[in-house]
Amino acid sequence: MKSLSSLELLSEALRRLPGVGPKSAQRMAYHLLQHDREGAAMIGRAMNNAVEKIKNCISCNTFTENQQCETCLDTERDASKLCVVETPTDQLMIEQTLTYKGLYFVLMGRLSPLDGVGPKDIHLDRLITRATDGVVKEVVLATNFTNEGEATAHYIGETLKARGLGVTRLARGVPVGGELEYVDAGTIARAMLDRRAT
Amino acid sequence: MKSLSSLELLSEALRRLPGVGPKSAQRMAYHLLQHDREGAAMIGRAMNNAVEKIKNCISCNTFTENQQCETCLDTERDASKLCVVETPTDQLMIEQTLTYKGLYFVLMGRLSPLDGVGPKDIHLDRLITRATDGVVKEVVLATNFTNEGEATAHYIGETLKARGLGVTRLARGVPVGGELEYVDAGTIARAMLDRRAT
Repeated sequence: MKSLSSLELLSEALRRLPGVGPKSAQRMAYHLLQHDREGAAMIGRAMNNAVEKIKNCISCNTFTENQQCETCLDTERDASKLCVVETPTDQLMIEQTLTYKGLYFVLMGRLSPLDGVGPKDIHLDRLITRATDGVVKEVVLATNFTNEGEATAHYIGETLKARGLGVTRLARGVPVGGELEYVDAGTIARAMLDRRAT
Repeated sequence: MKSLSSLELLSEALRRLPGVGPKSAQRMAYHLLQHDREGAAMIGRAMNNAVEKIKNCISCNTFTENQQCETCLDTERDASKLCVVETPTDQLMIEQTLTYKGLYFVLMGRLSPLDGVGPKDIHLDRLITRATDGVVKEVVLATNFTNEGEATAHYIGETLKARGLGVTRLARGVPVGGELEYVDAGTIARAMLDRRAT
C-alpha cells in the first residue's frame, strides 16, 4: 500500500503537537477520519480561527483577541502592583484565590538555558519597560517554585531591583493542611527560616 | 482572567483527539500559539484538507483520495485472494513481508461488544458482498491475535465459510528468533498443536 498524501500530511502536521510522536499522530489521524470527522473539522476550524485571531496582549503578554486583554483594561485593578507569572494558567490560579487585585505580566515560559530559553524568550525587555512605567511600585514574582522558576524569579528580581522597584516573592512554607511528617525537609527548612511572629 | 473564546474553542476541539484530556489540550493550545504558529496553521490546513479529500475505498474500505485505492486498482494482484486486516497499518505490515500478492479488506476496527462495536461497525455486510463477488476463492484472516481480534476472525470466518468460501488464518506459533524459555505457554501450546511435518 502506498500511503496517501493527504493522510501523510495530516500525520506529519499532528506531530507538531507537543508530546505526539509518529505512532500517536497516525493513530489520531486514523481515529478522526474513521470515527470522528466532525471532530476533525472542528479542530481544523478552531486551529485556523485561533491562529488568525489570537495575539499577545501588548501590556501583559497573555493571549487575547484584542490589543489588550480584559484584565489589563479593567480600571478597577491596582495598577501599582504587577504580578509576574509563567503561564496564563498560573494567572488563573492566582485570580481564583481572590487575594490579588493588581495587574499581571505573563512570561509565557521560564528561563531554561539548557533548552535554549534565554531572557529574550521570556520577553524580559518588555517586562522591564512595563514595570518601569512609573505607576508600578511592587513587582510580585509568582513563577513556579521549581529550579527553573526560582532561577527566573531571581534573575528578574535582581534586574528590577537594580531599577529601584520593590520586588516580592510568593511565600514558601508548609502547604495548608500539610502534616510535617509528610512534608519534605527542604520545605520545612524554608518554613523555619521564614518563620513569622504571630 | 476571563478565558478567551477562540482559545477555549481550540482547547475544546483538541480534546476530540484520542487520549487528550483537558490539561493536555490546553498545553497543546498554549504551545502552538506561543511557540509554533506555523505548526498550528499546518495542522489547520492538513485537517481541513483531509476531511475534504479522504474517503474510504469502495472496494477495500481503506483510506483513499479516490473512489478506489491504488492497491485495489493494481491489476497485477491476485484477485482470488482477499486478506482481512483491522487497520491500514496492519495492511502495510503485511505488504512489507512481500509474501502476499492478493487484495485486502480493511475493517477499520475489530468486534468489541463491550465498547459497542458490532458487525455493522466493521462493515461486515460490505465484506460479505466483496468476498462473494465470484472471483475471491480464499479469505485470509489477518486480524490481531488479541482476544478481540481472534473473536473477530472467528465471527467473520464462520460467516464466510457458511457462504462456501475458503477461509484461512495467519499461522500461530513461536516467533522467529524466539527462545522457548522466554515464550509464553499459550504460544508454545499453540505451536505444538499446529506442528508441521518438515
